[in-house]
Amino acid sequence: MTERNHQIVVRALPEDRLAETHFESRHVDREVPAEGQVLTRTLLLSIDPANRTWMQGATYRAPVRAGDVMSGFTLAEVVTSRDPRFRPGQIVECDNGWQEYACQPAGTLVPIEPVTELTHHLSVLGLTGLTAYFGLLEVGRPRPGETVLVSAAAGATGSVAGQIARIAGCRVVGLAGSEEKCQWLTGRLGFDAAINYKTASLSSALKEHCPDGIDVFFDNTGGDILEVALRRMNLGGRIVVCGVVSQYDTGSPAPGPRGVPGLIVTKRLRMEGFIVMDFFAQREVATRRLAGWLESGALIAREDILDGLDAAPRALVGLLAGENLGKRIVRVADAAGA
Amino acid sequence: MTERNHQIVVRALPEDRLAETHFESRHVDREVPAEGQVLTRTLLLSIDPANRTWMQGATYRAPVRAGDVMSGFTLAEVVTSRDPRFRPGQIVECDNGWQEYACQPAGTLVPIEPVTELTHHLSVLGLTGLTAYFGLLEVGRPRPGETVLVSAAAGATGSVAGQIARIAGCRVVGLAGSEEKCQWLTGRLGFDAAINYKTASLSSALKEHCPDGIDVFFDNTGGDILEVALRRMNLGGRIVVCGVVSQYDTGSPAPGPRGVPGLIVTKRLRMEGFIVMDFFAQREVATRRLAGWLESGALIAREDILDGLDAAPRALVGLLAGENLGKRIVRVADAAGA
Repeated sequence: MTERNHQIVVRALPEDRLAETHFESRHVDREVPAEGQVLTRTLLLSIDPANRTWMQGATYRAPVRAGDVMSGFTLAEVVTSRDPRFRPGQIVECDNGWQEYACQPAGTLVPIEPVTELTHHLSVLGLTGLTAYFGLLEVGRPRPGETVLVSAAAGATGSVAGQIARIAGCRVVGLAGSEEKCQWLTGRLGFDAAINYKTASLSSALKEHCPDGIDVFFDNTGGDILEVALRRMNLGGRIVVCGVVSQYDTGSPAPGPRGVPGLIVTKRLRMEGFIVMDFFAQREVATRRLAGWLESGALIAREDILDGLDAAPRALVGLLAGENLGKRIVRVADAAGA
Repeated sequence: MTERNHQIVVRALPEDRLAETHFESRHVDREVPAEGQVLTRTLLLSIDPANRTWMQGATYRAPVRAGDVMSGFTLAEVVTSRDPRFRPGQIVECDNGWQEYACQPAGTLVPIEPVTELTHHLSVLGLTGLTAYFGLLEVGRPRPGETVLVSAAAGATGSVAGQIARIAGCRVVGLAGSEEKCQWLTGRLGFDAAINYKTASLSSALKEHCPDGIDVFFDNTGGDILEVALRRMNLGGRIVVCGVVSQYDTGSPAPGPRGVPGLIVTKRLRMEGFIVMDFFAQREVATRRLAGWLESGALIAREDILDGLDAAPRALVGLLAGENLGKRIVRVADAAGA
């Protein structure tokens, strides 16, 4: 009997906001790995705002189209290997998307040696943590004593970026969308201040909590928040453009913020985008540091885990609505072991 | 008898476009230098798009208000010095504004030793040339073989930036507002291509003339041009934000370009502003290089000179309308010598 594979497929691309009805479940025959391929079983599915951008068209990767298995970054376990580099039971990073099984060319798999709970390898020790690490330290280059502002600060990347800024000796201010998130940032993660941008006047709150201006803005949102933050940036400030979540879940992206490029000149700002893969040459050192901070308790990992592949559409729609605290993950299966 | 001083004063700040009627002439008593001050006589007045931004509010310098002598950067000659560092007849860079005479604190004057025509010390060898030099080389960091796009390429800064890019071994494409300017860029300055943005479809012209995309965009204009150029930038491209002339002469600046910050992320762009003074530690080396290129003929200086202080309002209004080719200067007086 042929084994079956459960997949979640994009039924139709959203014209405006994403809803669970844009997806549908299907069961197909499981593929059989060809020579040089590896059959993997998805264990954990990373749910990221970037997933939504892949539905908007070409980005740094191919767009997702109607009828495709939804794309998503995964941790998986090798089931059958037709490549000498991999053996059953091994844990790998891969791009399986929203399905239980996928055959992957061996060259696209990154083996990982879990040093702690597997979920941490998708959050603090995975691409999320590395995005925060490289974005803040390599693009933002904060100096001790500087003020770092982080938007979507209670999200997966923002919460790590803010904690690294604290470790680097900066004053850290976070923006988040609820009182609960703000209390978590200051009470648990050691942020110096947190602002609920949904209830506060952002402009006066920034004046109050960034009395010396903003030196580094780690921005995950763009939109109005970026426009207001620009006005509070210091001379020579750096804007780390990590994401633009305010513009992802819509069919009509807003124009760019006022002040670009005018304030970029008068304040001599540097606004720079990056993708975590740009810094992979330094991945080993970065992962070791992140693991050290995690072990010492300097860095707190927070995950927001939903169970079962069928939860994936709900997990992404909810993420875009800002309901998560920390890294959102869908647990698809438990490792079977070798 | 007290000597008189001819000044041009801002009668009223423009609400929208600047006109000559926003200025008026007046004659007042000439000031007498106090201890530590130097009385200088304005020789050449630099007419720059930045002059207009100073009328919009605080920038990197104090705003110009109604009733003020119009601000402007100048080359002047020392008439009387009450500071041991200066002697009559010496040529200095200073901030006299639109007037024949000004008393300046000695510490604000920068003595210059003319090595060629004095006007060149306001164009290629002055702040204009240095702005092009530092902006292109230090902020843009072009590599030989890369494609450099320059907006307002027939203007004072753009024409020098483009020529330096050519010297640096790049493919150089200029944007300008008339056929005459475009012909000058390719025929005389050695640009590889020039696009008349007023008649061409910018998007298809960029595709044609930047077949390998744009690596460095030296942008003097902002606005729609920036929005279209963003879409043609290469991965890892750099946008040198030198000025935003499209937004200076208006009371209602446009929103920022679409694609900011979205394309900044997906293309990993760096967008960075600067002011020439940020790089003054390297001024001597830069001036020596510019002078060498000028002498060898690798760099062509082009000036657009109007005579008499009364021409200043017309010179600025015309500059903002794009009527100049090269560096616009008002010649206020000839040096008298020591």
